[in-house]
Amino acid sequence: MARVSQEHLDARRRQILDGAARCFARNGFHATSMQDVLREVDLSAGAVYRYFAGKEELIGAIVTEVLGSIGAAFEAAAAQSPPEPPDVLIGRVMTEVLGMRSGQFDEEGDSGFPRLMIQVWTETLRNEELSAVMRAGFLKVHAAWVKVVEAYQKAGLMRSDIPAEHVARTLIATAQGFAAQQALFGEVPVSVLQDGLRAVMSMGAAEDQLKIS
Amino acid sequence: MARVSQEHLDARRRQILDGAARCFARNGFHATSMQDVLREVDLSAGAVYRYFAGKEELIGAIVTEVLGSIGAAFEAAAAQSPPEPPDVLIGRVMTEVLGMRSGQFDEEGDSGFPRLMIQVWTETLRNEELSAVMRAGFLKVHAAWVKVVEAYQKAGLMRSDIPAEHVARTLIATAQGFAAQQALFGEVPVSVLQDGLRAVMSMGAAEDQLKIS
Repeated sequence: MARVSQEHLDARRRQILDGAARCFARNGFHATSMQDVLREVDLSAGAVYRYFAGKEELIGAIVTEVLGSIGAAFEAAAAQSPPEPPDVLIGRVMTEVLGMRSGQFDEEGDSGFPRLMIQVWTETLRNEELSAVMRAGFLKVHAAWVKVVEAYQKAGLMRSDIPAEHVARTLIATAQGFAAQQALFGEVPVSVLQDGLRAVMSMGAAEDQLKIS
Repeated sequence: MARVSQEHLDARRRQILDGAARCFARNGFHATSMQDVLREVDLSAGAVYRYFAGKEELIGAIVTEVLGSIGAAFEAAAAQSPPEPPDVLIGRVMTEVLGMRSGQFDEEGDSGFPRLMIQVWTETLRNEELSAVMRAGFLKVHAAWVKVVEAYQKAGLMRSDIPAEHVARTLIATAQGFAAQQALFGEVPVSVLQDGLRAVMSMGAAEDQLKIS
């Protein structure tokens, strides 16, 4: 048997994950069979099962990878002082993640990844293993965001009497909801979300005025 | 045949919709049969089919009703001058919607409704009729939010150089993402989201400082 380089193994693994993601985004997790994945990546069963035992492992690996890269991006942001403001930071990471993935989903355009995302969410409700993977990934992203928020607060850029955990959840929610809209209603530039965040951020100056009721 | 009052008809319709929503939230749209719905509401097929021709009509009616009531709540908010700030407004409407529905989902607690929501989203990807219902409901909620945002801008409570459509999308995304988190990771009080919005709103005062990079 020919010896294969780590590089080759990695490329093969990448090819399988990308093909599986395309299948899941296109037809959903349940309607996709391992046969569909084999056909999509044009590899033999032996070649694919060497890497992944089945659909469950494929979807788990996809989720771990995506949430891992999102978490890492916010970890890096937290190390800056002060971190970029939320509109800049969320915009940059979303563009990276959607862009990184858009090659995977040529047929579906940029909404391929969001479409996969909401299907994974639904699958999570009835799949305990996937649910555990999702929870671990979310906790990682959340922990990174808590550090970003604490840095905002420490730098006097945000009121500091609100638990950073609550702000982290809210900012993650903004990105999740925006991605869900892309899946449901089609592509919209990420700059729309950035604009919106900037507008919400601008309300601070008028906050006292708002509390008239 | 005995004549029945409109009140009775409405109550029966309500009973069927609530039972169907419980079934869909619990087992998903696909795994739920009309038989399951009949069993859940303890009515005969004749009694149920008099109101709804099938699962498609049930889920369509549920989505129309929920998005209709959310749209109406924001319509009412837009009529105030100025409208309540986003943290107060989103918190109030979310509490109403989740509260209104929590009776439907006794077993699942407050995350029953969010669990139904993300399943509807996934179903929307492959169901054109439901997709049209969702889009119409979203446009209604979005139009109401645009009015709210324009009122903020007119009252000088928010910078007015950002399209209200973008801000509306962003604020809706915040609520959608927060609800998705409830579905995926369990209940969290709505006040968490309200806190987070208040903190983001507080960044405005320091905005110029943030633009150091």
